Amino acid sequence: MAIPLLNCDMGESFGNWSLGMDADVMPFVDCANIACGFHASDPHVMRRTVALAAEHGVRIGAHPGYPDLMGFGRRSMACTPEEAEDLVLYQVGALAGICQAEGTRLHYIKPHGALYNDMARDPALLEGIMRAVRAYDASLPLMLMSTADPAPSRELAARMGVTIWFETFADRAYDANGHLASRRLPKAVHHDQATIVAQAVALAKGEPLTAMDGTALQLPSDTLCVHGDNPESVAAVRAIREAFQALEQA
Amino acid sequence: MAIPLLNCDMGESFGNWSLGMDADVMPFVDCANIACGFHASDPHVMRRTVALAAEHGVRIGAHPGYPDLMGFGRRSMACTPEEAEDLVLYQVGALAGICQAEGTRLHYIKPHGALYNDMARDPALLEGIMRAVRAYDASLPLMLMSTADPAPSRELAARMGVTIWFETFADRAYDANGHLASRRLPKAVHHDQATIVAQAVALAKGEPLTAMDGTALQLPSDTLCVHGDNPESVAAVRAIREAFQALEQA
Amino acid sequence: MAIPLLNCDMGESFGNWSLGMDADVMPFVDCANIACGFHASDPHVMRRTVALAAEHGVRIGAHPGYPDLMGFGRRSMACTPEEAEDLVLYQVGALAGICQAEGTRLHYIKPHGALYNDMARDPALLEGIMRAVRAYDASLPLMLMSTADPAPSRELAARMGVTIWFETFADRAYDANGHLASRRLPKAVHHDQATIVAQAVALAKGEPLTAMDGTALQLPSDTLCVHGDNPESVAAVRAIREAFQALEQA
Amino acid sequence: MAIPLLNCDMGESFGNWSLGMDADVMPFVDCANIACGFHASDPHVMRRTVALAAEHGVRIGAHPGYPDLMGFGRRSMACTPEEAEDLVLYQVGALAGICQAEGTRLHYIKPHGALYNDMARDPALLEGIMRAVRAYDASLPLMLMSTADPAPSRELAARMGVTIWFETFADRAYDANGHLASRRLPKAVHHDQATIVAQAVALAKGEPLTAMDGTALQLPSDTLCVHGDNPESVAAVRAIREAFQALEQA
Repeated sequence: MAIPLLNCDMGESFGNWSLGMDADVMPFVDCANIACGFHASDPHVMRRTVALAAEHGVRIGAHPGYPDLMGFGRRSMACTPEEAEDLVLYQVGALAGICQAEGTRLHYIKPHGALYNDMARDPALLEGIMRAVRAYDASLPLMLMSTADPAPSRELAARMGVTIWFETFADRAYDANGHLASRRLPKAVHHDQATIVAQAVALAKGEPLTAMDGTALQLPSDTLCVHGDNPESVAAVRAIREAFQALEQA
Repeated sequence: MAIPLLNCDMGESFGNWSLGMDADVMPFVDCANIACGFHASDPHVMRRTVALAAEHGVRIGAHPGYPDLMGFGRRSMACTPEEAEDLVLYQVGALAGICQAEGTRLHYIKPHGALYNDMARDPALLEGIMRAVRAYDASLPLMLMSTADPAPSRELAARMGVTIWFETFADRAYDANGHLASRRLPKAVHHDQATIVAQAVALAKGEPLTAMDGTALQLPSDTLCVHGDNPESVAAVRAIREAFQALEQA
Repeated sequence: MAIPLLNCDMGESFGNWSLGMDADVMPFVDCANIACGFHASDPHVMRRTVALAAEHGVRIGAHPGYPDLMGFGRRSMACTPEEAEDLVLYQVGALAGICQAEGTRLHYIKPHGALYNDMARDPALLEGIMRAVRAYDASLPLMLMSTADPAPSRELAARMGVTIWFETFADRAYDANGHLASRRLPKAVHHDQATIVAQAVALAKGEPLTAMDGTALQLPSDTLCVHGDNPESVAAVRAIREAFQALEQA
Repeated sequence: MAIPLLNCDMGESFGNWSLGMDADVMPFVDCANIACGFHASDPHVMRRTVALAAEHGVRIGAHPGYPDLMGFGRRSMACTPEEAEDLVLYQVGALAGICQAEGTRLHYIKPHGALYNDMARDPALLEGIMRAVRAYDASLPLMLMSTADPAPSRELAARMGVTIWFETFADRAYDANGHLASRRLPKAVHHDQATIVAQAVALAKGEPLTAMDGTALQLPSDTLCVHGDNPESVAAVRAIREAFQALEQA
């Protein structure tokens, strides 16, 4: 059994605007996806967030997004793979510089929002982002959405010489292909903490989930995405952490 | 005799907008001050410019500026020293990431425009920027405007543990304190190539310049700022380079 | 007795980031200073805020700022008067366009943050902003910080053909010149609601305030700045509104 | 015969970066599509461009784009119709404010780049933009790409109560559906001035063009897009203007 690492978006404040309960959730996660200034954050927020992660021994991930503060990086932009490659490089370097100043370092890369979703759909874009990772530091894992058919991504990663970490969600329902069910569907998002913890535990044990159509769904899960937006989501993270500790001690 | 390094602003295009004759001037300079996206440039332009500098064996300097694309970083902004520190760190890291991807590295840091001028006037701001350099990599020299009284900057740099390179100009007149004469004054800017080359040679030989008021002005000059904006300025760079080669062979 | 209009900054959310209790404070104010996208807000937030103000019959003011989202328009930028003039025009037009789409109109202009403070200090900048107002619509009042010596601003406004409204604060202490006491001084900010209401009432009655040095301070007050940041400030606005209603009925 | 109005993108400089030969081409066009600051331009450039258009009696059109300076508004962004509506309103208002300050007014609206192309493909987006036009001023025509089947756009415009102007191109080949042939195809772009003028004249006379596949293509043409990027394109505009004058005198 390989317990998935808990990863959480952090450092999403910007200037005078605050967002997220970073200090509350940091003690319970393994990996902090730190925004790099294109969809959220600024140099000051980045530095404070890197310091907070370092203080808690949490692995720091670059969380690069499309250059769209107004849309929080959630709107797809028709960037070429070459543009995406350089956008990622720039943001990764910026965060790495701040890590270096704080005496720590980057551990992985997880694209944000629409960029994350677009690379899951578009192999040319994914390859562009993998080129960025390889050119920067091929030892940094790239987080990707897990699916029922991880082989194509694994083959591309092997060919490009980069490591991927498959990411799953404990609070979202999946369709039979292992894609997240649309939020517009009923039951697409789990709000009940027991359901969330149960899905997390199943993923940790390597057990299949039940997809929306009732079929069994086997998903690789190197890391599990959790949220620090509000007290409920922070409580869910604590509950998952406790469940994982129980698994490890069992 | 220590021939000053020729440094030139580069990579000041942005998206669809082109600026500067980088490819023409690159062969004749020692140091490329590469814009980092806050006052000019974008990730794509940065990468292309880093590659061009690397191809020519030119030292790469981060050229961070205020976050003001509309004003090209030429408008002072009332940033605190802490804000300036983090703005510099972010931009230095971003360019360093691109250098790493291109198999090369940063050699020095030169703040741009209003940030450069403001740090020359405001010791607290200068100290903030020195904190950024020290935290990132204390071995990277920081370019500073040369003055008739370099002692205070040297003392601050020694206390902060950073290296400074004093910068002079061959195409600008100085006042008796070693400050650049205001562009609004007559004869503040040299347009004649012979005058420009003569001033460069004097600086290289360690000879005093003649200030606007006729007094002798001794300026330390680790590096000389040159320009690649137009064919005339590129021609002046070539002429300075040839004059320096003659000095070295003499 | 001329009861000052209560004005409040509104529409300071931006994209995914929320700020301010606009809906709570809107019923109690006369004038909504609506951010125009340079220091805060975006087209969507602006439209929602204009609609909210219109619904409550609140006068809409353009609240243009320096182009500095990261600094929330609170950092001075060395804009020329001509640059400030055009920055103001652009933002005023943008908000006016949204007003027109919502079937309402602009009533006044109040520069934001550092732009507001800078124009109070720099007559050339103030004149640039007055040129923008005059060129756009000379009938729109411009809000200015009240001082103990309003004559120079009145003379400039008369010469430029624009109307000014002097603004005072109920929750801030003043120095003997009628400038706001620095927030770094003790007792510079009133936190006690009774003190705030008493200062508002004195201003409404045209009675002098007591400056930090104990001298009497007479300030013209066409409008009073209030805040909708948090429940305490909203409660203070309600209390001022009630006190003003009592004055009007007396 | 209804001679199409010649429209040209203008005011695409930004801060320190210059683009386009506005002053050279302005005397020969009827309509200036003026960038509004989201994909190009800034308040200062907008004002200068509005003044130039007004001086030449050229109709001023708002040229709103996606908020993407780095991509010059040429990258599609997944904005909702409501977001597009408000983005257009904001930019239209900003330019209208500058027109008002210059004693002139807006005459029409032409979305830019990817926004223009996206609205031609996506009826919901087109409807959102029409809502913006209607809410702002239903008398302002909206420029749309002409196609072989203009009926759906005409019906939508009639339902929305807005006026549309169909736009054609003299320097581009069309496919049989009246869509611009991809620039990647050979012969997609006409570089020969005689060919460009002949296509312009055919459109003015209401004669069919010959599509890439050899079929006849009838396109409505209220306005013809011309370019002021370089001396060749400016020369082509002059030649089209002269050919149109000859048609009018015939």
